[in-house]
Amino acid sequence: MTKTYEVVGSGNAIVDVLAKCDDQFLTDMGIEKGIMQLIDTARAAEIYGAMAAGTEISGGSAANTISGLGTLGIKSAFVGKVKDDQLGRVFAHDIRAQGVDFDTPMVGADHADETGRSMILVSPDGERSMNTYLGVANQLSPDDVDPALMADTKWLYLEGYLFDRPESQAAFIRMVELCNAAGGQSSISLSDPFCVDRHRDAFHDLISNHIDMLFCNEHEVMAMYAGDDLQASIANGAQYVDTLVCTAGADGAYIANGGNVIHVPTEAVTMVDATGAGDLFAAGFLAGMAQGKDLATCGRMGCVAAGEIISHMGARPEADLKELFASKGL
Amino acid sequence: MTKTYEVVGSGNAIVDVLAKCDDQFLTDMGIEKGIMQLIDTARAAEIYGAMAAGTEISGGSAANTISGLGTLGIKSAFVGKVKDDQLGRVFAHDIRAQGVDFDTPMVGADHADETGRSMILVSPDGERSMNTYLGVANQLSPDDVDPALMADTKWLYLEGYLFDRPESQAAFIRMVELCNAAGGQSSISLSDPFCVDRHRDAFHDLISNHIDMLFCNEHEVMAMYAGDDLQASIANGAQYVDTLVCTAGADGAYIANGGNVIHVPTEAVTMVDATGAGDLFAAGFLAGMAQGKDLATCGRMGCVAAGEIISHMGARPEADLKELFASKGL
Repeated sequence: MTKTYEVVGSGNAIVDVLAKCDDQFLTDMGIEKGIMQLIDTARAAEIYGAMAAGTEISGGSAANTISGLGTLGIKSAFVGKVKDDQLGRVFAHDIRAQGVDFDTPMVGADHADETGRSMILVSPDGERSMNTYLGVANQLSPDDVDPALMADTKWLYLEGYLFDRPESQAAFIRMVELCNAAGGQSSISLSDPFCVDRHRDAFHDLISNHIDMLFCNEHEVMAMYAGDDLQASIANGAQYVDTLVCTAGADGAYIANGGNVIHVPTEAVTMVDATGAGDLFAAGFLAGMAQGKDLATCGRMGCVAAGEIISHMGARPEADLKELFASKGL
Repeated sequence: MTKTYEVVGSGNAIVDVLAKCDDQFLTDMGIEKGIMQLIDTARAAEIYGAMAAGTEISGGSAANTISGLGTLGIKSAFVGKVKDDQLGRVFAHDIRAQGVDFDTPMVGADHADETGRSMILVSPDGERSMNTYLGVANQLSPDDVDPALMADTKWLYLEGYLFDRPESQAAFIRMVELCNAAGGQSSISLSDPFCVDRHRDAFHDLISNHIDMLFCNEHEVMAMYAGDDLQASIANGAQYVDTLVCTAGADGAYIANGGNVIHVPTEAVTMVDATGAGDLFAAGFLAGMAQGKDLATCGRMGCVAAGEIISHMGARPEADLKELFASKGL
């Protein structure tokens, strides 16, 4: 059975507003470093008013992944919700400019909420603290899911953040069921440890019943599958899913599959901004899967793509990932 | 007489949309390299639809200059027109976040036009080709000029681009007259050679009657003051204005004043993106003026600030200009 799309991703469609800050700013504003925090309109205004001048770049976790796949020439589509406003049109332009199909209906211009945005404060150590006003991004509903698209998808890639609202959770489950029923496979990224804490049971049900491949980092896998020990958490999680792919910062990545765990080391890179590291790891990995590479090679491709992203500000690649892979024999 | 503002700038309030492209893209789209082209809504849609994913950064020529002065701690204000829409709020936030006062009334949300934006295509050689949809930016009118602000200004800095509309030209002349009447001084930047061609007579009247300091580059001074010879053009122009400051790319800058011409060499910098080089030169130069430096030192400060800007994408500084000046004994 031939399918059009190698990967279809779904998640929050948001625009990143990046600005540098010092650690004192985070303390003064009561912002916890290194995590994603959902905020309301009033808090968004407070933080935006105090932060430095920013740079706007289309973002969103799964959208970054799918955008990366687009630049790699992997046929992909994205499902997510923007409004027909300036930032929504920017988001749609940018993801389509990467060759990605994006046909989720926009929310009308008269809607009270706006296209979502995430204020990303980058501290001198390169860590980023995300304060996200979701706007219409989390108003994705089961009605937005196109059954024909799901039936035409080899790999579905879901962003855990969308679990924060029952309606978008329902949309996810509908996507997984439609994709799997047509013979496609499903993957999910856990997104962040606090997202895991908020939805552990729902994640567990989804993963153990429907998911073929789980993407996570060391903090997320430990939040989800117990304990202070990374390897024990990976081994525990690997019981519930065919393949568990866990990034571990400078230590590279671990891939659990069929009772084995492969370690993929990564090259040293000077970190400027960690935004999008996990997202682009997934892009590199899924590109490898689409090209029929083995799991270790997929892991290396993930590490190379993540290394490109952390070497500059912003979560969309500046270098040509295809050339980068070719230069490393991948 | 004590005045609050060292520098008050006025020009197009626009958001830059930066994307890389190759030379073939410029040829295919019929875009002339290295200049600013005004475009209408239909052409904006055509170019935006074809161009790669972009990065949005608050821009505008004089706004870049004033923003640079703000980061240097020079008390400054900006006069320009945005709409109360997403990009307009981004522009206002970013310039205020640099410590700049910006109180020009926004155009209401129900207005048909939007906040202006400039699609800046950066080719592999670092040259930029600007395609600007002005939107409400050129709807600045004499009514927007606050006489109290003009009376409280030591140096006025005007952007030649705003000469493209009679109403904003009138606003400029009002600003100059109010500022000069209160004992302030006025400067203008010629903005680009095609802008000079469009408005040579109006520029000449304004400069010879009202302007104390003229900023230009080698192409603009030759368009304005005759001939293929840079030095002859500078000497010619210097008859009409107290101080003529002309940047000349890798050759640094020439400053004509009181019958003399000073040459200020510049350090070699790898050019990534020329966007904003002239704007930040003016910022460095005017910062020197505000600090009472001599003209040669002002010129060196201009060259250092311009060198920072061309070393990365975007027309707002990434490095701390204060520290950069200090590291060079400026």
